[in-house]
Amino acid sequence: MDIAALRTANPDHWSKAAAIRALTLDAVHAANSGHSGMPMGMADVATVLFEKHLKFDASAPNWPDRDRFILSAGHGSMLLYSLLHLTGYEDMTLEQVKNFRQWGAITAGHPEYGHAKGIETTTGPLGQGISNAVGFAMAEEILRARYGKALQDHYTYVIAGDGCLMEGVSQEAITLAGRHALGKLIVFWDNNNITIDGTVDLADRTDQVKRFKSAEWQVLEIDGHDPQAIDEAITAAKKTNKPTMIACKTHIALGHAAQDTSKGHGALTDNAQLKAAKEAYGWTGGPFEVPADVKSAWEAIGSRGSEERTAWEDRLAEKSERRQAEFARIFDRDVPKRLAGQIRAFKRRIAEEAPKVATRKSSEMALDVINPILTETVGGSADLSGSNNTKSGDMTVFDTDNRKGRYVHWGIREHGMAAAMNGMVLHGGIRPYGGTFMCFTDYARPSMRLAALMQVPTVFVMTHDSIGLGEDGPTHQPVEHLAISRATPNTWVFRPCDTVETAEAWELAFTSKETPSVLSLTRQGLPTLRTEYKSRNLTEQGAYVLADSDSKRQAILIATGSEVEIAMKARDLLQAEGIGTRVVSMPCMELFAAQDEAYRRKVLPAGAVRVGIEAAMRNGGWDRWLLGERGREAKAGFIGMSSFGASAPAGELYQQFGITAQATVAKVKELLG
Amino acid sequence: MDIAALRTANPDHWSKAAAIRALTLDAVHAANSGHSGMPMGMADVATVLFEKHLKFDASAPNWPDRDRFILSAGHGSMLLYSLLHLTGYEDMTLEQVKNFRQWGAITAGHPEYGHAKGIETTTGPLGQGISNAVGFAMAEEILRARYGKALQDHYTYVIAGDGCLMEGVSQEAITLAGRHALGKLIVFWDNNNITIDGTVDLADRTDQVKRFKSAEWQVLEIDGHDPQAIDEAITAAKKTNKPTMIACKTHIALGHAAQDTSKGHGALTDNAQLKAAKEAYGWTGGPFEVPADVKSAWEAIGSRGSEERTAWEDRLAEKSERRQAEFARIFDRDVPKRLAGQIRAFKRRIAEEAPKVATRKSSEMALDVINPILTETVGGSADLSGSNNTKSGDMTVFDTDNRKGRYVHWGIREHGMAAAMNGMVLHGGIRPYGGTFMCFTDYARPSMRLAALMQVPTVFVMTHDSIGLGEDGPTHQPVEHLAISRATPNTWVFRPCDTVETAEAWELAFTSKETPSVLSLTRQGLPTLRTEYKSRNLTEQGAYVLADSDSKRQAILIATGSEVEIAMKARDLLQAEGIGTRVVSMPCMELFAAQDEAYRRKVLPAGAVRVGIEAAMRNGGWDRWLLGERGREAKAGFIGMSSFGASAPAGELYQQFGITAQATVAKVKELLG
Repeated sequence: MDIAALRTANPDHWSKAAAIRALTLDAVHAANSGHSGMPMGMADVATVLFEKHLKFDASAPNWPDRDRFILSAGHGSMLLYSLLHLTGYEDMTLEQVKNFRQWGAITAGHPEYGHAKGIETTTGPLGQGISNAVGFAMAEEILRARYGKALQDHYTYVIAGDGCLMEGVSQEAITLAGRHALGKLIVFWDNNNITIDGTVDLADRTDQVKRFKSAEWQVLEIDGHDPQAIDEAITAAKKTNKPTMIACKTHIALGHAAQDTSKGHGALTDNAQLKAAKEAYGWTGGPFEVPADVKSAWEAIGSRGSEERTAWEDRLAEKSERRQAEFARIFDRDVPKRLAGQIRAFKRRIAEEAPKVATRKSSEMALDVINPILTETVGGSADLSGSNNTKSGDMTVFDTDNRKGRYVHWGIREHGMAAAMNGMVLHGGIRPYGGTFMCFTDYARPSMRLAALMQVPTVFVMTHDSIGLGEDGPTHQPVEHLAISRATPNTWVFRPCDTVETAEAWELAFTSKETPSVLSLTRQGLPTLRTEYKSRNLTEQGAYVLADSDSKRQAILIATGSEVEIAMKARDLLQAEGIGTRVVSMPCMELFAAQDEAYRRKVLPAGAVRVGIEAAMRNGGWDRWLLGERGREAKAGFIGMSSFGASAPAGELYQQFGITAQATVAKVKELLG
Repeated sequence: MDIAALRTANPDHWSKAAAIRALTLDAVHAANSGHSGMPMGMADVATVLFEKHLKFDASAPNWPDRDRFILSAGHGSMLLYSLLHLTGYEDMTLEQVKNFRQWGAITAGHPEYGHAKGIETTTGPLGQGISNAVGFAMAEEILRARYGKALQDHYTYVIAGDGCLMEGVSQEAITLAGRHALGKLIVFWDNNNITIDGTVDLADRTDQVKRFKSAEWQVLEIDGHDPQAIDEAITAAKKTNKPTMIACKTHIALGHAAQDTSKGHGALTDNAQLKAAKEAYGWTGGPFEVPADVKSAWEAIGSRGSEERTAWEDRLAEKSERRQAEFARIFDRDVPKRLAGQIRAFKRRIAEEAPKVATRKSSEMALDVINPILTETVGGSADLSGSNNTKSGDMTVFDTDNRKGRYVHWGIREHGMAAAMNGMVLHGGIRPYGGTFMCFTDYARPSMRLAALMQVPTVFVMTHDSIGLGEDGPTHQPVEHLAISRATPNTWVFRPCDTVETAEAWELAFTSKETPSVLSLTRQGLPTLRTEYKSRNLTEQGAYVLADSDSKRQAILIATGSEVEIAMKARDLLQAEGIGTRVVSMPCMELFAAQDEAYRRKVLPAGAVRVGIEAAMRNGGWDRWLLGERGREAKAGFIGMSSFGASAPAGELYQQFGITAQATVAKVKELLG
């Protein structure tokens, strides 16, 4: 690569791009870890994008109509941090750049959403950013259709590497974007032919151009170090109704001794090589020094959008007060005040009617109440709409000719669905929820974890939540999936026992601002157990006394979801034998753990044996409630699963696996000695 | 669809295919659940495949050189059960077919490996079968290179539906197969244009032909109901060096009122419609009745391969005794007898040398000993070879020009790697292991679960297993992943504390015949703690006393992996203060749980406070050991994680998150009151 030629051909461009490269080299050197090569390879693309196309204002990072820039190749975080620092984002100080990858800095190893302004999503696990981007672009389409171009009309740009494109989830994302003709989605592929193990060819020979075209994308191919070609490609990308992939031929670690090698992917910290690279760049500043003229050129880019932003604010101010308030509300993740009252009315009606329905149906009934009020919801399912009961009556299907549609047929793409839902909520203005069978939590896991880590309230509707699914058999019967989600920090796992608890769970899921929710719902019918109307959302406490002992309390049965019915039957049997028995319904362990100790002790007092009942593995967080956090609190047992399920009718499976009222009674007696 | 024309055009073919359709309708009707449409749509393809091409012998279902037939669209299980019954597999009796989806039957809702002969892999979770198939085809290539065409020379056939192709993992599988020119892999795409939610177009408009071609596949397009076209396509597929995808245009639920509709996907149980469909087929038999001539025609197909099979046995018998024994051994999943001695010698050397290395490096050291002996291993990594330390010194890279290569560069495809590894072990003759960062367990989860469910001993090497990973930050730091694997039935999770335990874990992983293993290994260096040589594999007991109290035992510290070092330091501090402290190393909770109660009590006697130390969530199965299974056994505490990690150097993270010897000492004192 003739660096000198690049420098002299476009000196103004070069110096700006070199600033990114120099800061990257310095920060990685200081941290003695990180990834130098990608920012060095993609600095030219990023510079042209930010200088000439990206609609943003560094002084207003939350402007709802900004273009979104997503670094899907998150290991190249110094590219983003450099851009944010250079363009003048207030919080991205030079000090933060100097503290790259250190405790307390906002400059984490990979970009972490919420750490610094301008980080649109957390990336690093490959394939996630490009898949989030589909949700960003869908959100923009929906909001543009609802609020008009005056308020919503922006692009979503992505930088993705070979790793992103090899991950399967990228195929789900690409085909979704093509199917829905997301023309405002523009992906730069950092085509540097290098992965950690060596050249891409070691593991992959996919013709990415053909692959994207097979999914109805526009594909452009350019030299990723030619500023004019980059500019022209972006201009062309903005003009089509298809999503565009710009294949950028680049050199990883451009200008460094490790250029074009897998060594160049990682941390380049050798002093002499660093010095040589900077010399090749014509960079004379010391570590972390950016010449004043270069910095001010970058700052001009950072403020380039301020006029456009204030014009947007003027347009917003012209809207009706109601419209303005609604727009602010949905971007603040607030719910309308009247939601609470409507849910209370629904609960009152259900308590009276006491329907016997599966909680997946309860969920649909609740959504029929919620969705007409919470108009920013977007529902969907991974090709199980009729089974997940995720489509409420008022919803039409999102499509190229119905951008206002609020229901998405995600196809058989659980992972892509979860990632795109994260993108929607990160974009703002949308509250997404999507369904699949709970067993396929497995497919969506990487994105579910990131929702928790990013602190965004995505809602995962997981139906058919136990052996109660029946004949489809163990491949479709979750036993460990409650444990999986419960072991994940910042995740609410709701397993409601009836329609009332299901409505309460939905209320909590949608009023959550920073915690994703998993709704664990049954295939099989369940009776209404909350037949006494309570205006208060009891699920908010995580657990509560559903039925107390009639006589001296000797046993406490703790159950969730479909097994609360079994606990109630066991209580009847035990009390008939004079054994005073309390039933605690525990729809959300995480919320119960968040209550004060006094309440927890009130619900689970010492002095009685305890039996937990849940058609799942005991490892799912049970022992804390059964044994007490420090132990020695109670004698306890568990009725549940200790193996995979089997294929048979649900009733037979409950009998065969011993999850019955009779088994519960026997366990209590055994513990009472 | 003109069924009459199909019938008259090829009556012999038709009656055989109709038998599949009729059995499917009857079985689904009897079960009142299941999926009728797919077997009805693909019966013609399957009939031609089995009649004219598939190399198999129903009387010898384990013949190592049989062609493999994988029903990736596992919901169409009645297609497979019909074929197995009709061709005369001994265990697939008519009674089993009649008991479709019932308790105890081998005819589960989805095909379950191990239930019936002829089920090559468990399918149902979409995309898995086609991805397993890549492993099958790679295993065949490797074994053919090693043992010659005389012993190994077969095809792997797959039926995949739209669901399989929409799942992201299929892209990983397709691109792997193309990269490695797996010419003996032949995939039939059931192109029926229907998914559960409606037509495919609702969610996807991918040009599958172009997509497969972009990954270097041969693609053929045929009418999936034309026997001659099917036959010709298979013949053409067998002739190329590329993998072949045969796009079969089919009608779901052919001949039924629900044909070509999403309703046709599910259970077709209406009596009148069932009768009408059978009439259209010209099928006169009662429920589950197959005319004698049709059954005998199918049985002839089932025995068609017996001559070829005996010829193969003759060829095997001609090999040297040593070669024969080796061939039998690898297909029996046995290890060579001398492995144990070599591992003992390694342990003795390590106990003396006491190296301070990361356990990922310990793992490489162990593999350097094991791989030259266990020549059926195939290692690999999802583009983290240097980080996972999975490539031992003697391994060369599997490639188109080196089919004997035993190391696979899987690319950035954790899910595809896991699924293909399952395929390798299912094929037989190969013991696969593959690495990634433990956090990306998330990506591989669906296949890891299936390894456990299928009872196959795939080995997942998960390095960088805690915040000890350091600067890459929380996206790369597992905290819940030990819990995830421990909550999964039939999975051994090994978290060794040093090189000796790592070698023991490898020995157990490779001697396992029915349980997959997860090896949880550190990035950071650890001292050798097992400096006293023991010939016995102590890890086999799951937990053991590493260091006992010098004085009256007041505390037991239980730790795993990198935290055992911390426990040992805490013990020193506590004993210096006169608090007798035992340290229990617990490298595998599952194996400890499998010990008899006497041993468990010996290791964890009552009467001392207990503190668990693990840089992960407490939900990962800890309470059973801390509190006792029925509670009231001990006062206990836990030193670990209760949130996601952060980006900083590892040492700082351990301090900040309070996972230190000092914190352990404080916890013990608090519990002792």
